[in-house]
Amino acid sequence: MTTAAASSVVLDIPVTVDWSDDGRAVRIVDQRALPTSVVWRELRTRAEAEDAIVTLAVRGAPAIGVTAALMLALLAEQATATTAERAEVLARLDADAAALRATRPTAVNLPWAIDRMLACAQRHGESATDLAAALREEATRIRDEDRAMCDAIGRHGAALFADGDTVLTHCNAGALATAGIGTALAPIYTAVAQGRRLSVIADETRPLWQGARLTAWELAQAGIPVRVCTDGMAAALMAAGAVQRVIVGADRICANGDVVNKIGTYAVAIAARFHGIPFYVAAPWSTVDPATPRGDAVVIEARHRDEVVRPAGRVIVPEGVPVENPAFDVTPAALVTAIITDRGVHAAPFDFSANA
Amino acid sequence: MTTAAASSVVLDIPVTVDWSDDGRAVRIVDQRALPTSVVWRELRTRAEAEDAIVTLAVRGAPAIGVTAALMLALLAEQATATTAERAEVLARLDADAAALRATRPTAVNLPWAIDRMLACAQRHGESATDLAAALREEATRIRDEDRAMCDAIGRHGAALFADGDTVLTHCNAGALATAGIGTALAPIYTAVAQGRRLSVIADETRPLWQGARLTAWELAQAGIPVRVCTDGMAAALMAAGAVQRVIVGADRICANGDVVNKIGTYAVAIAARFHGIPFYVAAPWSTVDPATPRGDAVVIEARHRDEVVRPAGRVIVPEGVPVENPAFDVTPAALVTAIITDRGVHAAPFDFSANA
Repeated sequence: MTTAAASSVVLDIPVTVDWSDDGRAVRIVDQRALPTSVVWRELRTRAEAEDAIVTLAVRGAPAIGVTAALMLALLAEQATATTAERAEVLARLDADAAALRATRPTAVNLPWAIDRMLACAQRHGESATDLAAALREEATRIRDEDRAMCDAIGRHGAALFADGDTVLTHCNAGALATAGIGTALAPIYTAVAQGRRLSVIADETRPLWQGARLTAWELAQAGIPVRVCTDGMAAALMAAGAVQRVIVGADRICANGDVVNKIGTYAVAIAARFHGIPFYVAAPWSTVDPATPRGDAVVIEARHRDEVVRPAGRVIVPEGVPVENPAFDVTPAALVTAIITDRGVHAAPFDFSANA
Repeated sequence: MTTAAASSVVLDIPVTVDWSDDGRAVRIVDQRALPTSVVWRELRTRAEAEDAIVTLAVRGAPAIGVTAALMLALLAEQATATTAERAEVLARLDADAAALRATRPTAVNLPWAIDRMLACAQRHGESATDLAAALREEATRIRDEDRAMCDAIGRHGAALFADGDTVLTHCNAGALATAGIGTALAPIYTAVAQGRRLSVIADETRPLWQGARLTAWELAQAGIPVRVCTDGMAAALMAAGAVQRVIVGADRICANGDVVNKIGTYAVAIAARFHGIPFYVAAPWSTVDPATPRGDAVVIEARHRDEVVRPAGRVIVPEGVPVENPAFDVTPAALVTAIITDRGVHAAPFDFSANA
């Protein structure tokens, strides 16, 4: 458990990726079991880490990157128990890195964290043990930078939320997706820690229910009032005056401010605009991609039909009927009130083309 | 199976409520088993009919009303097999009517159909057998009027759909909800029967998936191309140019044209307006309620949290976290392009206050 910085209210925000207490494992909360069971896992082998990432026991791009970094440091330490040869440790590290890199080929944070660990290995360590020590430091630094990124987003964004606000969010961009207090949820945690009373409405987020399962769980853990609605209910709640702000995360932010995020985000943004409700996006600065001019240039991943067809194992679509299952949608910049990154609050109109 | 009137294309539209072939039972398709199994049931007793309505084996306000009418006629005939006393048959009819009326206390078509059968019983029959014959005629007339209502909606609305259109719909207001070809789906069936090529996108319609389970099934049965999306995907599909029209049903239409319909309808209407896509509502004229001036006067039924919390039996919301589960929402008249009833196409602006 961690506590948001500069808090007047102590929040039990789950730390979902970290070293285990003895420092000899990577401890994660198993997101597959949420919200009905809270299962903490200690990953000690490469196979356990691969499995955790592939099966989404750990998910969220920053959280995956940190998991891989911590695990590579552990594996290097384990290697030094059987060999004193730096070259041998490096060779095993390369093999481990390749295996972890292959677990989720599309997430950007995963190869970024792995490459950083490999670069560190090249730079450091005359001996195998020096190398392992350098890798543990680098992995811990990656974790700490992720936490600091979350804290900065929280600090910059918190001022946008007023006492008494009910905030609607979609999917999960919280502590469960990072090593810290999240991205979209960070300003909420921080504002509450500063003493403002906020409550949250979590869209369930079909097809995979990250909002109902994960966002509702971590906010409830932290003692922040949260309720869940289906994705089709958000607009009606806005019409009823039940929503004062919307905040979501982002998988990519284009040079013009178009936002790529979990499918369903765009519908929420349209409804927010229709009701005159501010719509905020919070994400690490690394999510801003000056090389992608606009959202229509982004190729959207189409996921497996079973996610739509077989919720919780029950078939709800007739055999032979096709389904749509895009993982993301594009919210045009014109619908975004402000973008919050660890560098600050960026108000519309946006131009990130010169910020490479 | 029936065939839309004046068709150049023969469509196998399921007839979901009718007499059985021998006329001694009410035949329904069991909507609980759809879409994985197509189970036809023949209801022969009051208990079977009560169970079918209570457990949603038959659903949709018009379909329920027709089911009750047919069943009351059957039960009167069964009574004449054991008594020749008209008074005795009438007494049993009253008891049967009271039992069926209690199955779904809020639907308006159910008491309407039952009252009509009771009034018919008062008017007709010197003998028990004359009475039973009159009731069979009245029940058949109620069924036929429902079919004619659907056909009229189809006829009036079909002209709004152009060859090549993809039409998005929400929930199920089709053959499965009526004794005929449906309300919102009637113009689609009729336009296709007239030779125009339409395809349909069915919102899955959380929490109960009527779009995925029912709308997709009946359209696929009729040979009309249909695909399913989650409710959060509809706006993104509109942005992609994949939707030319939207049509939905209505549970109530207010004097000013505000439309009460399945939760999620309002979000679709906002998205349609944002993309400049026509948004149509189709419903029986009897749905227009001049006594309700505006949508904000309508009390919205809140349904059980388990529908949101336990889709297909799996718990997706943490224990103790509240959920929203309104059954309906209100789409303001300003978002509605036209309302199609059996009386014709009513274009905006709407004023039904003088149409009692």
